[in-house]
Amino acid sequence: MTVPDIPPGSLFGVDNLPYGIFSAGGGTPRAGVRVGEHVLDLSAVLDDPVFAAGSLNPFMAQGYDRWVAARAQIQDLITGDVPAEALHAVDDVTLHLPIEVADYVDFYASEHHASNVGRLFRPDAEPLLPNWKHLPVAYHGRAGTVYVSGRDIVRPSGQRKGENGPVFGPSQRLDIEAELGFIVGTGTPANTPISPDDFAQHVFGAVILNDWSARDIQAWEYVPLGPNLGKSFATSISPWVVPILALENARVPLPGQTTPKPLPYLRETDPWGLNIDLTVTWNGQPVAHPPYREMYWSPAQMLAHLTINGASARTGDLYGSGTISGPNQDQRGSFLELSWGGKTPITINGKPKTFLDDNDEITITASAPAANGSRLSFGDVSGRILPAR
Amino acid sequence: MTVPDIPPGSLFGVDNLPYGIFSAGGGTPRAGVRVGEHVLDLSAVLDDPVFAAGSLNPFMAQGYDRWVAARAQIQDLITGDVPAEALHAVDDVTLHLPIEVADYVDFYASEHHASNVGRLFRPDAEPLLPNWKHLPVAYHGRAGTVYVSGRDIVRPSGQRKGENGPVFGPSQRLDIEAELGFIVGTGTPANTPISPDDFAQHVFGAVILNDWSARDIQAWEYVPLGPNLGKSFATSISPWVVPILALENARVPLPGQTTPKPLPYLRETDPWGLNIDLTVTWNGQPVAHPPYREMYWSPAQMLAHLTINGASARTGDLYGSGTISGPNQDQRGSFLELSWGGKTPITINGKPKTFLDDNDEITITASAPAANGSRLSFGDVSGRILPAR
Repeated sequence: MTVPDIPPGSLFGVDNLPYGIFSAGGGTPRAGVRVGEHVLDLSAVLDDPVFAAGSLNPFMAQGYDRWVAARAQIQDLITGDVPAEALHAVDDVTLHLPIEVADYVDFYASEHHASNVGRLFRPDAEPLLPNWKHLPVAYHGRAGTVYVSGRDIVRPSGQRKGENGPVFGPSQRLDIEAELGFIVGTGTPANTPISPDDFAQHVFGAVILNDWSARDIQAWEYVPLGPNLGKSFATSISPWVVPILALENARVPLPGQTTPKPLPYLRETDPWGLNIDLTVTWNGQPVAHPPYREMYWSPAQMLAHLTINGASARTGDLYGSGTISGPNQDQRGSFLELSWGGKTPITINGKPKTFLDDNDEITITASAPAANGSRLSFGDVSGRILPAR
Repeated sequence: MTVPDIPPGSLFGVDNLPYGIFSAGGGTPRAGVRVGEHVLDLSAVLDDPVFAAGSLNPFMAQGYDRWVAARAQIQDLITGDVPAEALHAVDDVTLHLPIEVADYVDFYASEHHASNVGRLFRPDAEPLLPNWKHLPVAYHGRAGTVYVSGRDIVRPSGQRKGENGPVFGPSQRLDIEAELGFIVGTGTPANTPISPDDFAQHVFGAVILNDWSARDIQAWEYVPLGPNLGKSFATSISPWVVPILALENARVPLPGQTTPKPLPYLRETDPWGLNIDLTVTWNGQPVAHPPYREMYWSPAQMLAHLTINGASARTGDLYGSGTISGPNQDQRGSFLELSWGGKTPITINGKPKTFLDDNDEITITASAPAANGSRLSFGDVSGRILPAR
């Protein structure tokens, strides 16, 4: 038996404890929790077959009370002794997609991002469309192409506008969108909307999400039914799911929503956002620090909106926040905004760049205040661009 | 042992044999095939556990050669003797959602429909947007709210445009979209696009699909990311999956695609559409006869487009054709078009109507030419509107 070592100041301390799916030494994928620089094998220390599953879905489906109890049990275990063989160095394990994705929806919840995109695409009009401050705009994405961090991303090919009609070829404007993703643990049947105040009962945790975007494909295809192939080739998420229970100390007031006031179904008793700091690193150089606390629409409002029309929600539903951008130039979560539509290159390692080149590598990290004055990390979501096939 | 009785002229004869999931007499849901007015329990007559599953996915995942062999085996069985207890009268069984839906995508493949919608929403502009004849426009819908025929549909509530900003309430413009849905049996890994010529290797079958649509919710929300809550509350499909193998005799040339010619990845060696006749019945009165043969984009082109950017496809992926509308007034597959935006009511049982009222009932049927000079039926997809909650 051993006491898991947690280095002082670790962002993976007892107040974080994110869940993931890992395999080690030829074993099958199973649930683990990250503790310091180790992964604790939950299937070895907790007597419940849900932790031997290849995704967190069976555990998430057990519901809120179980999430609270399991977290307390794990916190108790790791301050005492655990079997040495249940601990694996994080460098020795393979991390898998932590959830089986049911439906994937992506929002557009940052006012700074939506305004920047509006200014770029409709320079002579109001940057925000009339509906934007009344409802959290979103579209459904492709659940089957949500991948775990570390997967290489093959440059997508598709149609883009040419001088004499569309041309086909590899995307020339391949971009990222730095986002958070929220994972539904227990859903709701049809015709039973989830109130924003019931968020914590339904949402299990959060991940960092990179919504890879081919801007040239998207610009040509997106009217009138929205983005499709410009996004559907790949979405990457971080392997560690930070429990909502760990984010209590990250709650901050929402920045806006006074003019207009949201409609009643979107009102929260105590509206809250999350004080999460992201960093986007391009080929090893930090290029942006998107602040989640600046988001206009809250995670609870997004889920309430998704279900208000009677749509059910399921265990494993994933919804992204949309690109996180702050008011400052270095707080923008996409290269479309950082390079202002490709017009003002960013200098990366001495080289001017606008969109992604082959072999470029992107890493997005995130951290937040946790309990007892500590901080917690979301780990990272990374990916490298491979040439088009 | 008995020989299944097939009434003369039955649209469920030996050249149709659609697959479904049924339960009878308190038994668990399992796979069956419709023969005349009976359902043959495949789990009782074929020695393969895939037919005891609660969805067709495990059978579909076995692939094209298996689909061919199983069909021949079933055709052989039903012309000889089968155990009497393996046959259930269709009126005595409960029909379930036949597939576990992976990703659901809805296209917009009818030129007549897209032109009608363009004329209604942008009366002073070209009816078709510039991309429409170059790519099959589509969006991802909500897989978790695809329901089997017969389910009541609760009128959705949501935001719609008001005189002084948006108002919230039950949809006042609840509509249908009469479509076909295509079901992927065996998918493709990432970065391995499916050529249009390989359609039959991947697509298992087709169903009738009703994409219920709240036009007022959709009109307010859809810019710039496309439809979301106006569609996500419910999509209904027929319980019987007609095998693509049964539709060989329904193939017809595509009506257009000369100006412009599609880009090479969308070209088929022998471009084909399907000569399927639909009928929309509103409270018992037939109101429209949408002709599938008029569709601009083919089923094979839609699948090729979905995967050309490197997106994978999975067993259980469902894609809809979009509303099927022909050139004539009585061939339009939505009430938006039939009532010309609500301006010219349709008379149903003596009453002028535009969109759906509470307790209205919609049934969509479809039939097509089959082998040996016979015809086949898709059965129907039906649903009744319940008042908003």
